Amino acid sequence: MRVGLLGLGTVGSGVAEILARHQKIIAERAGVSLELTRALVRSRRRRTGAASHVPLTQNPAEVIASPDVDVVCELIGGMEPARQLVSDALAAGKPVVTANKAILAEHGSEIFAHAKRGGTDVYFEAAVAGGIPIIRTLREGLASDRVSSIEGILNGTTNYILGVMQEGGGYDTALRQAQRLGFAEADPTLDVNGQDAADKLAILLQLAFGMTTRPRDISVEGITGLTPEVLADAQDLGFRVKLLAIGRRAKVPSRSKGGGEVTKEVERVDARVHPSLVPVGHPLSAVSGPQNAISVVSDALGPTLYQGAGAGGLPTGSAVVSDLIEAARDLRAGISGRVVAGSSRHAPGLMRPADAQSSYYVRLEVEDRPGVLASVTYILAKHHISLATVLQRERAGKFGMPVPVVLTTHPARHGAMGKALAGIRRLPALRGSIHCLRMEEPHAES
Amino acid sequence: MRVGLLGLGTVGSGVAEILARHQKIIAERAGVSLELTRALVRSRRRRTGAASHVPLTQNPAEVIASPDVDVVCELIGGMEPARQLVSDALAAGKPVVTANKAILAEHGSEIFAHAKRGGTDVYFEAAVAGGIPIIRTLREGLASDRVSSIEGILNGTTNYILGVMQEGGGYDTALRQAQRLGFAEADPTLDVNGQDAADKLAILLQLAFGMTTRPRDISVEGITGLTPEVLADAQDLGFRVKLLAIGRRAKVPSRSKGGGEVTKEVERVDARVHPSLVPVGHPLSAVSGPQNAISVVSDALGPTLYQGAGAGGLPTGSAVVSDLIEAARDLRAGISGRVVAGSSRHAPGLMRPADAQSSYYVRLEVEDRPGVLASVTYILAKHHISLATVLQRERAGKFGMPVPVVLTTHPARHGAMGKALAGIRRLPALRGSIHCLRMEEPHAES
Repeated sequence: MRVGLLGLGTVGSGVAEILARHQKIIAERAGVSLELTRALVRSRRRRTGAASHVPLTQNPAEVIASPDVDVVCELIGGMEPARQLVSDALAAGKPVVTANKAILAEHGSEIFAHAKRGGTDVYFEAAVAGGIPIIRTLREGLASDRVSSIEGILNGTTNYILGVMQEGGGYDTALRQAQRLGFAEADPTLDVNGQDAADKLAILLQLAFGMTTRPRDISVEGITGLTPEVLADAQDLGFRVKLLAIGRRAKVPSRSKGGGEVTKEVERVDARVHPSLVPVGHPLSAVSGPQNAISVVSDALGPTLYQGAGAGGLPTGSAVVSDLIEAARDLRAGISGRVVAGSSRHAPGLMRPADAQSSYYVRLEVEDRPGVLASVTYILAKHHISLATVLQRERAGKFGMPVPVVLTTHPARHGAMGKALAGIRRLPALRGSIHCLRMEEPHAES
Repeated sequence: MRVGLLGLGTVGSGVAEILARHQKIIAERAGVSLELTRALVRSRRRRTGAASHVPLTQNPAEVIASPDVDVVCELIGGMEPARQLVSDALAAGKPVVTANKAILAEHGSEIFAHAKRGGTDVYFEAAVAGGIPIIRTLREGLASDRVSSIEGILNGTTNYILGVMQEGGGYDTALRQAQRLGFAEADPTLDVNGQDAADKLAILLQLAFGMTTRPRDISVEGITGLTPEVLADAQDLGFRVKLLAIGRRAKVPSRSKGGGEVTKEVERVDARVHPSLVPVGHPLSAVSGPQNAISVVSDALGPTLYQGAGAGGLPTGSAVVSDLIEAARDLRAGISGRVVAGSSRHAPGLMRPADAQSSYYVRLEVEDRPGVLASVTYILAKHHISLATVLQRERAGKFGMPVPVVLTTHPARHGAMGKALAGIRRLPALRGSIHCLRMEEPHAES
């Protein structure tokens, strides 16, 4: 089975390496032999290792339209020309394996439609959490099940940075260390602002709930605003801070148009990406270093957890090769679309961010004088937010300096919390900025 | 696609329930509709729920040989008649979905051969760790990878019992509690003696390493000998006791026939089931209640972890339904054996139990007089076993009573430890029995 590569960078070279190293095992286990017949590259610089044996071209048509290529494997990344090339290959009836989360998150429906039109399929295990077979699991293992929630650490870079910060490092130090060790790119923007995790979440929402969600419709918050103080508070409270991507079915009251009485409840999916306090004992709190992990709760299986490498040439390459094997087998058997990506017919809609419910951690600095805390709690109470704990941290310096106060709340609507924070910000006694993070409930299994 | 059930107990009813409840989702996602057309039962007692709509029979041929049945689903369990019926169905060319670990562990090669002869396939996701898609992952996700180790908690009953014991309960109390909550059968023998885990391990060894291993060739030790003292020691040392099933590639010296000098090293698989001290921080140490978890290390992916429900009607039923969907799709597409169970051509052999290397925890009770500890350490040293820690526990009562001593060792050969223990047992100062458990190394990721 002849494979044409689009892109021959880290992952492409990893794929070449795996195919060369495990040729026998692949042929024996899968009954297919895979050969790299062409690779589209930007520069014809000399490659090393297994990649050096692949014939190079700078003309996309020589991969996509070539009769020598049975399966197209897109590893360019980014939006264009990747989106166009993948669409063209599918429309021409060639199966595509891709590791490109961005095009699937942003143009998933269009790409699936091209595949359907071409009578073929797109395989994208490598696009989300490279080392974890989550796509396969959602497409096949859970095909007869109903997912109620999916919650994960989908970005290894930020998980590594948060781990260093948890040990006491500042954000900048942690980022530089991640870059030095190869866990963060030179430009880490899409990782640290949560966009990478939101792209992956959009793909998972499609598979788990049949929803067509654009990443821009997901409420996203990155880790750049976090301080060592916040991570220390979390630790003292028995939590770890993790950048979570969450998709969760929940009922919300459906109000009549006039805004009057609640008539009934409707199901929505609460989808968001943000740093969160995760209680120690929750399986996601223990995920360390650049690893990824995904916790799925479904009707029949109950809670399941999948953990593994999130990125890297070999893990991602291995996911690509698994997909190549599947694509080649499907092609030979003349079938396409083993299990289609969740249909949208019964799909619930996205919850309005204001309707989402969470417990909250709030850190603020106030002037140390009588009545300030009373004003804060009064504002929270006015928005129906009840306090769980109040912790006045040790005085930072001499008398007259602001005092840090750490509050945690019982579950509250995000909209109510937003209004309460706006009120607190207007208090004359407030000094400095407010940190407000959501808190996860302890895991059902722990 | 018409499905004939063999057996309509807990899992069979679970399957009927899932098919009824998720009919639309299954048809939509998988493009197949599944109908239960016949069920073989022992007694014609009245069924409730979805199971009550399935036509019953007491004649196996009416399921296996019936033209109304496209796929056979074996849920009887045990050895006979399950083995015979599965073999007959496969030989007649009907795909079989089974949750039966015993027949696959004991007669796997024979069953795979029947499938090959019949030009069809056997699907067995539900046979190992029902709620975890480990079979699918090893067959497909890791098809291009090389597994170096697989390590898991494969028996939920014993994991539940050990959890209760870790809280201070005795073995009998813990077992009764597990039975009351439905986590243990009336006859728990095969769970607590480790046999159930060994059956599952034999199946995983086949997939991960291509080995044909009978459960009886795996060295197995159950949890019945464990005492609250051992679990308390583990806790004090920073460990949890878990019943582990382990399959791990390792090099052993290959001696020339005469037993002379080491000429070269050969690769073997160290396969065993036994209670083990797992360090806190290792992902398997945190697996609680009746859950299962499997940690796989492979060349390309590095470490991955899968955790979920190990048993129960719905989790196992869901795994069966996933397999039914796959079987139906393969049947329609006219293909069989998507990825064959690991071939045995490059399979390593089983390591001799004496060659396995581990660190050890040893608890013994000795007379409290000078020189006793020196004798114990002398015997260990004679067998090249070096001590890591020695802990003399608080005196149990008045002077003259035996004193518990807790030792941990650096890695040693199992054979050497066996000989050392035999020597220690002959010491006149020894009182009571010796507890000796292996210790896991901290996980690479923690």
